[in-house]
Amino acid sequence: MTVLILTCEEDVTADMVVVHLNGAGVPVVRVDPADLTGGVALSGEYVHGRFRGHLSAGGRLVSIGGLRSVWVRRPGTPAARAAQPSAWLTEEAAQALYGMLRGSDARWMNHPDAAVRARHKPWQLRLAQRCGLPVPATLITTFPRAAREFAERYPDLVVKPVSGAHPQDPPRAVPTSRVAPDTDFSAVAFGPTLLQRRIAKRADVRLTVVGERMLAALKATAADADPDEVDVRFAAPGPPWQPADVPPRVATGVRAYLREAELAYGAFDFAEDADGTWWFLECNQSGQFGFVEVETGQPIARTIAEWLARPVPEEPSRVNGSNATVR
Amino acid sequence: MTVLILTCEEDVTADMVVVHLNGAGVPVVRVDPADLTGGVALSGEYVHGRFRGHLSAGGRLVSIGGLRSVWVRRPGTPAARAAQPSAWLTEEAAQALYGMLRGSDARWMNHPDAAVRARHKPWQLRLAQRCGLPVPATLITTFPRAAREFAERYPDLVVKPVSGAHPQDPPRAVPTSRVAPDTDFSAVAFGPTLLQRRIAKRADVRLTVVGERMLAALKATAADADPDEVDVRFAAPGPPWQPADVPPRVATGVRAYLREAELAYGAFDFAEDADGTWWFLECNQSGQFGFVEVETGQPIARTIAEWLARPVPEEPSRVNGSNATVR
Repeated sequence: MTVLILTCEEDVTADMVVVHLNGAGVPVVRVDPADLTGGVALSGEYVHGRFRGHLSAGGRLVSIGGLRSVWVRRPGTPAARAAQPSAWLTEEAAQALYGMLRGSDARWMNHPDAAVRARHKPWQLRLAQRCGLPVPATLITTFPRAAREFAERYPDLVVKPVSGAHPQDPPRAVPTSRVAPDTDFSAVAFGPTLLQRRIAKRADVRLTVVGERMLAALKATAADADPDEVDVRFAAPGPPWQPADVPPRVATGVRAYLREAELAYGAFDFAEDADGTWWFLECNQSGQFGFVEVETGQPIARTIAEWLARPVPEEPSRVNGSNATVR
Repeated sequence: MTVLILTCEEDVTADMVVVHLNGAGVPVVRVDPADLTGGVALSGEYVHGRFRGHLSAGGRLVSIGGLRSVWVRRPGTPAARAAQPSAWLTEEAAQALYGMLRGSDARWMNHPDAAVRARHKPWQLRLAQRCGLPVPATLITTFPRAAREFAERYPDLVVKPVSGAHPQDPPRAVPTSRVAPDTDFSAVAFGPTLLQRRIAKRADVRLTVVGERMLAALKATAADADPDEVDVRFAAPGPPWQPADVPPRVATGVRAYLREAELAYGAFDFAEDADGTWWFLECNQSGQFGFVEVETGQPIARTIAEWLARPVPEEPSRVNGSNATVR
C-alpha cells in the first residue's frame, strides 16, 4: 500500500515527511497535479461494476486501489505545466484526477471537501463555540451601524480579513491590526469586515494536531512588546516557540472540533491571556509546521508520516470519502 | 421560518418555485450573492458562545437562525455587481456569506460541499456502480495505448468531456459524440479523455428526484433517428417527454446514490436499451427541470417548494452542514 503526496515540486515540508516514510520503508509516490498531462498520467476503467485506476509519475505506476492514504499538501493547479495549458484542460484534469481519487478508499489528510469547508472563518468561529472553545467576541458585518455599536461595547478591537490571504499571485497574508478608538466605520458598507475583541495576550499558542496526537507550542509575549503588534506573523521575533501542555478542556474542545470538521490535520492558533485561558483565533487545515518543529524539536513530520503510513483499516468500503477522513 | 433562495436575477425556474411558496404562505427571501455589498448586506455576531446573524435584501431583514432551508439555484459570483468589484472583495464576500450560512441549521438543496463533490464524473460513475446502477463500460485516460485496447474490446464508443461544460463565458455544453472506428488515439496523451460504450437506446430517461420523490420522464428515440446523434441535448426534437414509472431496482439504486451523495435534489440521465435496462449516464445536482415540467405536466416545482417549506425537524443541532443535507 502506497502513500500518495499531492504537492508542488519545491516543498521542503513534504521532504521532511518523506524522509520518515522512506526510513520506515513505506512506498511513497509524489505527484504535482500541475504535471498532468506531462510527467503525470492517469487512467481509470469502469467495467462490470468495478473500477481499476492507475497513476503514473516519475516513471512509477501506482494503482489507485492500492493507495493507503493521500496527503494534500501544496498541490499545483492541475495541468498548469502542460504543453498547452488552458482553463478547459485544467478543469478536465482536475475532475479526472480528484474524481478518481475521491472514489478510492484511501484515508485523506485532508479530504478536499473538508478542506474547503474548514477555510470559512465564520464557520470556524461557530464550530469553535459549539465545541466549547472560548471565542473572543467577534462581529462580521457590512452594516456600519452594527460596527459602531460593537465598538462601543468592545472598545479594544482588532480587524482582520474574513478570508485569510489576499488572492494576488503569490497570495499575500493580510496582518491583523488594532482598530483606533476614533475609527469611522462607514467604509464597512463596501466589504464584509471582521472585528474582534483584542485579547491582552501573554503568549501565542500554536497547537498542531495530527490525527489523535496534539503538539502544542507557546511563544511568550515579550515584556516590552509593542501592544499594536497583535499579529505574531508580523511581530518582532521575541522569545522562541516552546513545547507546552494542552489544558484538558482545550483538548476536549479541539478533538470535537476536528471530528465535526472531518479533519485529520489542523493547526490551531490561540491567544493565551493573563488568566491562562486559550482564546480560539483560527484553525488552519493546511497550516505550516516546519518552523514549530525546528524551534521546539517536536516530531510533527514524523507524526504525520506515521498517520499516513497506518494501514487501511479493514472495515466495509465507504462510498463517501469525506466520512472517511478521520479514522 | 423563511426559505432562502440563492440565485441570479433572471431565473424563471426559481420563479416557478416561488409561486408555489407564495401560494402556501411560506416566507421567501431571494438573494443574489452578486449584489453583495450593494443591495444585499449581512451581519453576524459571535458573543458569549452564541451566534446571531442577519441578511438584508430588497429591503427585508431575515435572521440566519430563522432560515428553514436554503435553495442554491444559480447564485451569481459574490460581490460581482459591487461598486468596485475585485477578486479580493469576491473572496471576502463569499467567505462571509457562505461561512455564516454553513453554520446555520437550515436544510440545504443542495449543500455546497455535496454540490462540488457531485460534479465529479469519475466519482459519479464509481458511486453509481456501488449503488448497483448499471454503468456502461467507461475509460478515462491519458494513455493512448489504454484507449486503443479499450476500443478493441468495445468497438462502438462515444466520447464526452470529463468535466461537463466548457468554462468559457457563458459556459458551453460539449456534446457527446460517436468515436469513428479508425480513430487515432494518440492525442489522448494531451488531455484526459472519457470513452464510453455506446448504448443502443430506445429512449432517453430523465429522472428528477426531490427528497424522497421521484419523477421520471422518457423520450422515445425516433425510429428514423440518426444513430450518430447520441446527445439528446443536440438531437432533432423527436417525440415529446412523457411521464414514466421507475423500475424498482433503479429506485433502490437512486435512493442509495442520493443518500451517499448527500443530495436533496438530483437530475439523473439514463439511456434505456432494447431490453428495458436503464443505463446510468450521469446525475446533475443542479439539472434544469423546467422543460420536463412543461412537456410532462409533472409537478416538479411544487415538489421542490414543498421540500423547501418543510419545517426544520426538532433534532439535536448538527454542526456539520453536509451531514444535514438530506433529512
